[in-house]
Amino acid sequence: MRTNLPIDATRLWDDLMALAEITDPDRPWTRRAFSTVFLEGRAYVARRMREAGLTVRLDTAGNMIGRREGRFPGHKAIVLGSHTDTVPDGGRFDGTAGVMAGIAVARSLHRDGVVLDHPLEVIDCLAEEVSIFGLSCIGSRAIAGQLSTEQLRRQAPDSHEILHDAINRMGGDAADVGAARRDDIAAYLELHIEQGPVLQDERRDIGIVTAISGITRLEIVIEGQADHAGTTPMHLRRDALVAAAAAVTVIRKDAQRRAAAGHGHFVATVGEFRVEPNAGNVVPSRVTLLVDARAEERSFMEGFVAELPPLIERAISGSGAEITSFRAISDNRPALSDPLLLEVLEQSTEKFGFAARRMASGAGHDMAWFSRVAPSAMIFIPSRDGRSHTPEEWTEPGEVAAGAAVLHQAVLYLDKLLA
Amino acid sequence: MRTNLPIDATRLWDDLMALAEITDPDRPWTRRAFSTVFLEGRAYVARRMREAGLTVRLDTAGNMIGRREGRFPGHKAIVLGSHTDTVPDGGRFDGTAGVMAGIAVARSLHRDGVVLDHPLEVIDCLAEEVSIFGLSCIGSRAIAGQLSTEQLRRQAPDSHEILHDAINRMGGDAADVGAARRDDIAAYLELHIEQGPVLQDERRDIGIVTAISGITRLEIVIEGQADHAGTTPMHLRRDALVAAAAAVTVIRKDAQRRAAAGHGHFVATVGEFRVEPNAGNVVPSRVTLLVDARAEERSFMEGFVAELPPLIERAISGSGAEITSFRAISDNRPALSDPLLLEVLEQSTEKFGFAARRMASGAGHDMAWFSRVAPSAMIFIPSRDGRSHTPEEWTEPGEVAAGAAVLHQAVLYLDKLLA
Repeated sequence: MRTNLPIDATRLWDDLMALAEITDPDRPWTRRAFSTVFLEGRAYVARRMREAGLTVRLDTAGNMIGRREGRFPGHKAIVLGSHTDTVPDGGRFDGTAGVMAGIAVARSLHRDGVVLDHPLEVIDCLAEEVSIFGLSCIGSRAIAGQLSTEQLRRQAPDSHEILHDAINRMGGDAADVGAARRDDIAAYLELHIEQGPVLQDERRDIGIVTAISGITRLEIVIEGQADHAGTTPMHLRRDALVAAAAAVTVIRKDAQRRAAAGHGHFVATVGEFRVEPNAGNVVPSRVTLLVDARAEERSFMEGFVAELPPLIERAISGSGAEITSFRAISDNRPALSDPLLLEVLEQSTEKFGFAARRMASGAGHDMAWFSRVAPSAMIFIPSRDGRSHTPEEWTEPGEVAAGAAVLHQAVLYLDKLLA
Repeated sequence: MRTNLPIDATRLWDDLMALAEITDPDRPWTRRAFSTVFLEGRAYVARRMREAGLTVRLDTAGNMIGRREGRFPGHKAIVLGSHTDTVPDGGRFDGTAGVMAGIAVARSLHRDGVVLDHPLEVIDCLAEEVSIFGLSCIGSRAIAGQLSTEQLRRQAPDSHEILHDAINRMGGDAADVGAARRDDIAAYLELHIEQGPVLQDERRDIGIVTAISGITRLEIVIEGQADHAGTTPMHLRRDALVAAAAAVTVIRKDAQRRAAAGHGHFVATVGEFRVEPNAGNVVPSRVTLLVDARAEERSFMEGFVAELPPLIERAISGSGAEITSFRAISDNRPALSDPLLLEVLEQSTEKFGFAARRMASGAGHDMAWFSRVAPSAMIFIPSRDGRSHTPEEWTEPGEVAAGAAVLHQAVLYLDKLLA
């Protein structure tokens, strides 16, 4: 681990591990939004914020905000954010690394007696992961003014509690959720683990995130005919699985071609695949595929979606099965980072001699919502073997500290630049 | 419909439709073995047997047997059999056509005052379809002396009743199930719907079944690695679904090649296909495929099973995923028809000028078990569009009558030939 960083790396690591230990005891590491253990985690985070000289409050959407004032009361805030909720059986770094790194930056400024021109905030955004309400990024949506009253009426399947009431239970005031919208943010920076293998693969310390890829989810239904698997000769079949297999193959080939084409990040995955009737002695009649495609460039995504149906039709022709439905079930555009912030982050990594690369995020983050109301950007730190959303998730102590040091330096640069 | 047949075709059809109407009212056509409605159906069949001059008894395994004695008490019996249980949401012909055709033959002999040299029996075999005990051909297994005490201890999932008790509830005597084994059958003939499209496709009246194909079920597990679908670049993935799609494609191609090779009936189907974790945003880590292969020639099946692993390995090489398990979960050899009976059935079809073809059965039937203790053979009558195990299952009245006429003629021929 580098020892000349402006961050107390040991303290940062200890805080991160201590927060991780606040977990459902039966399934580490689990601290789902809206749970009791999540509130315990937040109480811990609030203590760490206060020790770092921050004043802690909850906004009406249930975001926890630690703030130190700057020299000039009229200045907008520089914000460091991420989240402290986890998926079930998740890891110890996703989200928490960003919040604890933000607190470590505040702690260093506090220790060194630095007074910035701008206010500095560390925000623990409520419920970034898909929660029991089937929605992600609840807190950051509200900060962007995009949490709808319809979404507030969503119900949790077991308790039947509605999101509105759950936000209040977290300390928010959902009736006034509009007040959580921010127009006083000068810059938003988020540190997050990569959740992919690229930095490790290329032995880089820092990823400078140019964009959060757009995500389009397509549902494709391929139908043939259910026939007796013993009695129907091969040449008289209309096997939907044989056709769907050809579709998976051609989707993969097309995605590989596009990923290699140099138009930024592009991936496409068939992750959900449902066969009907899925019985050993029946020729499959119907397969439903879910394609998850992510692209840094919107036009590239549009090309993929437009060209896919004829590509699949060609691949399955002759199988007797056919596409009976092809529709986008969700379609989110990419969120671009602010060019000035990218520049500042790059200079900050250079200051420490870290190996960095620009890259797009394939996963969604709170930053996508902040970018609607403020100049925003992110940095990635490495994820061992690209593993995430699993107890095996791992980042080295020195890698977390390196990311925090970059944030610290970026805050100092921005405080001058934005004046 | 032909009118010069030795069968009362209208009566046969009316009986068949009346039996079908004895169904679970909420899901026609359903008359599952061991249910109350199944017993109602059997009471109906027993009445029709008695009217046709048969003496009705139940053997210890719960098979219902209608018998007329022949001229020579020492002669073994000529048996016409099939079953009257159905799958859930099944059809009106599978099994019942064979039982009711057998009764129609007996009725004609009774009407015409024919006394055969041999005893004639019509057997309604218990539970040919896979029942709540997860076992098929319960009655005919017992007739072959192959129903084990272990199988008799099988438990139904809901009621926890064991098969032993269920057989007794059907009127059997499971403690003495060994007594159901027969060594006094001179010939067993079964009429059944084809459950496939070949006869319709070739406009034939009758299929003369040379063999019941052997059935081998293979379970193949292909494993790769679960990764984040957004963040893992295409070239760093080990996608189990992409590999499994290539496996499905190559299994299909190989099956098509073997089916066309002229070694009798061959089909192979991937009917069950399970993807894990089957989540939209996760690269699939594991796929389990179930291959159902059926071959008329045993050596041909052995070749298929032996050559499949290297074929799949070649197809998935480069995907990063691999076969982690390949095993046969069941393996039943083909059951061959008796050559003399095939000859007799062929002459019987010629007598009426029916268009016939020899063919193997891709589906299992009671005949496979009878063939272990007696010379056995089957005939098929057409299934509209090959549909079976569905309410749409259909065979024309004239087609059922044609099959019954062939049985009638074959019984007359055999009675002389076997003397």
